[in-house]
This record gives sequence, C-alpha cells and structure tokens, in this order.
Amino acid sequence: MDLNTASQAPEPPAAGRPEEYGLLVLERTLGEQGCPEQRDHLRALRGWLFEELSSLGDDFAGLRRADDFNPVNRQAAEFILGLPGKRLRPLCALVAARLGPAWRNPLVHDVAVAAEMVHNATLLHDDVIDLGTERRGQPCARVVYGNAASILGGDLLLVRAMQRIHRHGRPELVSGLLEVVERMVDAEAEQLELRGRLNLDRARYLRVIEGKTATLFRWSLAAGAAAADASPETVAAMQTVGACMGMSFQLVDDVLDLRGDAATLGKGLFADLEEGKTTWPLLVAAERSRTFAADLQRWMDSQRAGAVPSGEILAALEDLGAIDATMRLAEEHIQRALDALQVVPQGAARTVLEVILQAVIQRRS
Amino acid sequence: MDLNTASQAPEPPAAGRPEEYGLLVLERTLGEQGCPEQRDHLRALRGWLFEELSSLGDDFAGLRRADDFNPVNRQAAEFILGLPGKRLRPLCALVAARLGPAWRNPLVHDVAVAAEMVHNATLLHDDVIDLGTERRGQPCARVVYGNAASILGGDLLLVRAMQRIHRHGRPELVSGLLEVVERMVDAEAEQLELRGRLNLDRARYLRVIEGKTATLFRWSLAAGAAAADASPETVAAMQTVGACMGMSFQLVDDVLDLRGDAATLGKGLFADLEEGKTTWPLLVAAERSRTFAADLQRWMDSQRAGAVPSGEILAALEDLGAIDATMRLAEEHIQRALDALQVVPQGAARTVLEVILQAVIQRRS
Repeated sequence: MDLNTASQAPEPPAAGRPEEYGLLVLERTLGEQGCPEQRDHLRALRGWLFEELSSLGDDFAGLRRADDFNPVNRQAAEFILGLPGKRLRPLCALVAARLGPAWRNPLVHDVAVAAEMVHNATLLHDDVIDLGTERRGQPCARVVYGNAASILGGDLLLVRAMQRIHRHGRPELVSGLLEVVERMVDAEAEQLELRGRLNLDRARYLRVIEGKTATLFRWSLAAGAAAADASPETVAAMQTVGACMGMSFQLVDDVLDLRGDAATLGKGLFADLEEGKTTWPLLVAAERSRTFAADLQRWMDSQRAGAVPSGEILAALEDLGAIDATMRLAEEHIQRALDALQVVPQGAARTVLEVILQAVIQRRS
Repeated sequence: MDLNTASQAPEPPAAGRPEEYGLLVLERTLGEQGCPEQRDHLRALRGWLFEELSSLGDDFAGLRRADDFNPVNRQAAEFILGLPGKRLRPLCALVAARLGPAWRNPLVHDVAVAAEMVHNATLLHDDVIDLGTERRGQPCARVVYGNAASILGGDLLLVRAMQRIHRHGRPELVSGLLEVVERMVDAEAEQLELRGRLNLDRARYLRVIEGKTATLFRWSLAAGAAAADASPETVAAMQTVGACMGMSFQLVDDVLDLRGDAATLGKGLFADLEEGKTTWPLLVAAERSRTFAADLQRWMDSQRAGAVPSGEILAALEDLGAIDATMRLAEEHIQRALDALQVVPQGAARTVLEVILQAVIQRRS
C-alpha cells in the first residue's frame, strides 16, 4: 500500500480521538516547524493506518475481563492509558509492520498494544517511585487512585502485555519483551541511585536512557516488523532505527524539560533537576564549567528548599553550548537511524519512518 | 526413589541453612504436635531432596547477572529471598515433580525457583501497599532499602520468574504463571478495596484468599508435576491438592494472626485487623453476633488511634466458636486435598505430600 492511495482509505475519525494523539502531535509539530510536505505525509498516514489505530483505542479504553472482580487496579491502568499521549511506540510498531508481508497478522496489533502497556506500566511505577504529581497535564494516577492502585495497575499492565504476546506462540518476541522490562527496571534503579548527586559519567547516563527509553522503542519497531514476517535484514534495521530513535527521543526530552512549553508538555519545567537527575545538557555544562558544576550540586542539595533559578540555569546552559551539544547528539542518533533505514526498500512505510524520525527531533512536546 | 533409601542420600547440610527452612519449620511443628512418625518422614526427606533444595539456596542468594549495572533493585529482591521463610511453594513443586518420570528435568528446579520468586515479588509490592514494617521477624525490605527499591525489586523478580519458565519452551506453564500473577494482583486490589470496612460477604473473602494464596500453591504443585511429565490425571490431582492446600494455609494464617506466637511468626499479632482486613474468624464472629460486628467496625474505624483490645477480641472469637469454625474449614480443605491425592500411586512423594498437608494445618508459624 502506498501513501498516495490513502485518499481511498476510510475517513479518519474526528480530530482529537485518543487513537490519533500520536499523529496529531507529530503533524502539529511538523506544521509549526515549516515542514508542510512532511506534515501532509503524516496526514495521509492517518487514513492509511486508520483501522489499526482505531482498534488500539478500543483496547486501551477497556481492560475489563468477564472474570475480573475488582476495578481498583484496572482503574489506574485505564486512567493512564486514556491520557492524551503521543502513543509513539504503538505507532512505530504498526508502521514497521508494513515492511513485512503479514502486516495483517493479529500479532502486529498485540505488539503495538503491548508496547504501550509496558510503557504505561513503568510510568505508573515510576510515579510512585518519584512521588510525581502530574503526568501529561493531568494529576498522576497515584494522586487520583493512590500509590497502591498505581503499583497494582502497573503489575496488571505488565502481565497483560506479556499475555498479549505470549498467546501467539512466537517465543522470541516474549523473550525480547521480558528483556526489555528487565532493562527498564535496571535503568530505573540506576537512575534512582544517581539521584540527587551530580553525575559526570557519560557512559552511565547513556546506559540509563538506553535502558529506560531506547530498549522499548527498539522492541516496538523490531517486533512490529518481525510480527509481519519482515526479512531478517529489515528486522535488524528496525533494531537500530528503534534504539537510535529512543536515544534521540530521550535527549530531546531532556532539552524540552529545560526550555519547552510547560502547557504543551503537560508538566512543569525543570522537573528533572528538581528530581535530582543530571540529564545530558546538565552533564555537558558541568563538564565545561566548574562553576556550573558547583552551582548544580548546590541546587540539587537544596532542591527541597524551593524552586531552582531556572532562567539563570537556562542562560548558563545556552552560554556553555550544552543545549546545542545535546541537540547535536540527538541529531547524530537520528542520522544513524536514517542510515540504517537505507537497507529497507523505498516505499510508504520507509517514508513515514523518516518523517517520524524528523518529528522526534523537532517536536515540542 | 523411596523414602527408605534416604539414608544412602548425601548428608543433609548443617541445620538452619536457608535451603532447609521449609523442612525444619515443618519438622519442628510435627515434633511439637506429637507426630514423631511424620516428623521422621520429613527428616528423611531432607536427604531425599538434598540436591534440589541446595540448588534452590544458591539461586536465591545471587540474582546477579554479568550485564547488570545497578544493585538497587537486586538488593531488595535478594534481601527478601534470603529471609528465613518456610519456602513451602518450591518444596511442594519439588515433591510433586517426584510423581513424574522426568523429575531430573532442569525445568523442575526453575518451577520451584519461579514459584518462590513470584511469592516474594508480591510480598515486596504488598509491603509498599500496606506500609508494612516487619516481615519474618526482620524489618521489611522497604524499610531497609526504601519503597522504590521494593517496587523495582518486585518487578525484577516477576520478570526473572517469567524468564525462568519461558526458556524451557513449555508455553502452557508460562500462561499458567501469568494467570497466577494476574489473579494475585486482582485479589490484592480486592483486599485493598475491602480494607477498613467490615466484610460479611463470604464469597468475596474466599475469592480473595483463593487469588492471593491458593492460585500460586496450585501452580507450584501442578507445574512441578507437569515439568516432570507426570500423567494428566496426576497433574489434575496436583491442581486440587495445591488449591486446597493454599486455602487451608491462608485460613490457618488468619488464625495464627490472632493467637499465634508473635516471636515464632516474626510479626505482631492482630496485624490483619490493624490493617482493616476482615479475616475468616472475624467474619464468622460478626455473622454470629451483632454486638461483635458493631465492635469490630468500631475497632476498624479507630485503628489509627492505637492497639486493638486483643485479649477481649480473642475471648469473644473463642466464645462465638469462630476460631473453631475457621480451623474446621481449613481441615475440610485438607481433607479434599487428601481425597484428591488418592488417584496418585502410593509412594514416597504421596506420603510426603500427606505429611505436608498435615503440617500446614498444625503449623505454628
């Protein structure tokens, strides 16, 4: 199927329906960034993937089973799945599946759903760990339903995600997803350990973001392609595309936390620093200036006392070139992803992946 | 292998080594209860299962992997696995495996390890949910390492347990274990919802203990037998034996919480009531006496204010026959388990399962 045939696809649902969040956010970003051609590609994708995207929304809306007898854990899980997120992971899985002949295999849908479930399971547990209060512009599930419901809701999502994949009899996808969760937990533990102190160890930082973000992107793209019986070369390329996309995504997140638009992001700025996380821009600036490093440590030590001087820090980061350095590293990862895409035959899916890669770096939320 | 040949087995390790906790606790219980013959059966079992029990201990002591880079989550997980528990679930899995020809299949060992891992994962998460402070006579992992490490440690144990089973290519055991975790989470959510208010719904109570305790016992025994290629009839019998053993185990737990020996139990008495749980003895007493029901609701409402009048409550429970009724229900389940055992050929494993069933009801911790 080609993007050009998208006009024959069913009409997309009304703007703003949950299943479209990912696309709408990306379209807006590309439109604002003066990339109308790419935005139009994405708009066509809405029709192209209409069925798949709609069925995702149905799945997120209701986790109920006939034999459930308690709603507590389900509520927290459904609450977080229903928040307006980008849903980039399931979107990536669906697009990667178009690189294989069996993209109508029901396993593709379950890969997309499982990816979003695992992502949200870790968000639920992380909110309890970080004592977060806001997520995507809404109060956290733990604020609405309590810590207990968030812990159990996260457990439920993990189990349901594994069940989704396991039922298809493709053991390598189950192993892959278990390893992803293991890595995510490991990275969260590492981040927890680093919290509150200045981290100048680049390798440790990169391993944290690889574990907490890149592994699930990698699995989403590679498992989407594998579920559709794509060639081993294509699946391998999706591993690289996904890993690099995830690294870039997290680096851009680090920058958005410092100078994004709080309203668009749905959370306050400088949250990372307030949580004692040395993100890449902060690490680079601290490498380049002893004064900044000392200030940073002081802000971390006193973070409970009140707000950090965000204007002052942002100015210092820009003076030291730390923001630029971070964006450059993000762009390098995008370039590696684009290079890896070269082995994939030209066509709609490859074009769309290229657009998504550009949007990841240009996005504002 | 027969119990009578146990003397030719390697010498058991020195008393008190972690791999023996389950057996030592059961032996002591049976000795104290004037069942020397059964105690001697168990003592022989120590030699009989020596290798298997020892290898369990090794696995619990170290969850480290070469590519781990953070100890935070592992510490909490290793801490709780290392506490002196009864380790009844892995013991049951190992004994049930002796009912099949392939009891040396490495999968048997992994079933035993996975059962204990899942049990401990839920303990770690439950401690955070219940804000518990003691577990098995020691401070909780969450007190030692913090809530975050307990959440991540629980996640790690869940993933590792699934990996243990998944790697053997027996998908029905993976599905079974995923369903167990799903049921445990569901039951914990239900218990959370019932907390703090008087529950007079027998069916709800029974479903909670089925979910939180019986399902994992059922899986441990049935999966142990299945891993050893036992006959379908034997596996089915183990489902019943395990489910009934679990129900009985939890009912006895409810009684021990009211009149056990706090030192032996490793936790304070009346913890269930303080956490606002209407256990079976309390439910029965409340059914039988409106006065008791009203008092109970009042104690639950005021539980934050201080200790409950435990002597008074215990006397009322005994007067109302609620303790006896609970022990009778526990015994009924044990009888159903013994009946189900009839289809299993006579031999050492069956004898040992009978002894364990008796010990479950006679135990003091």
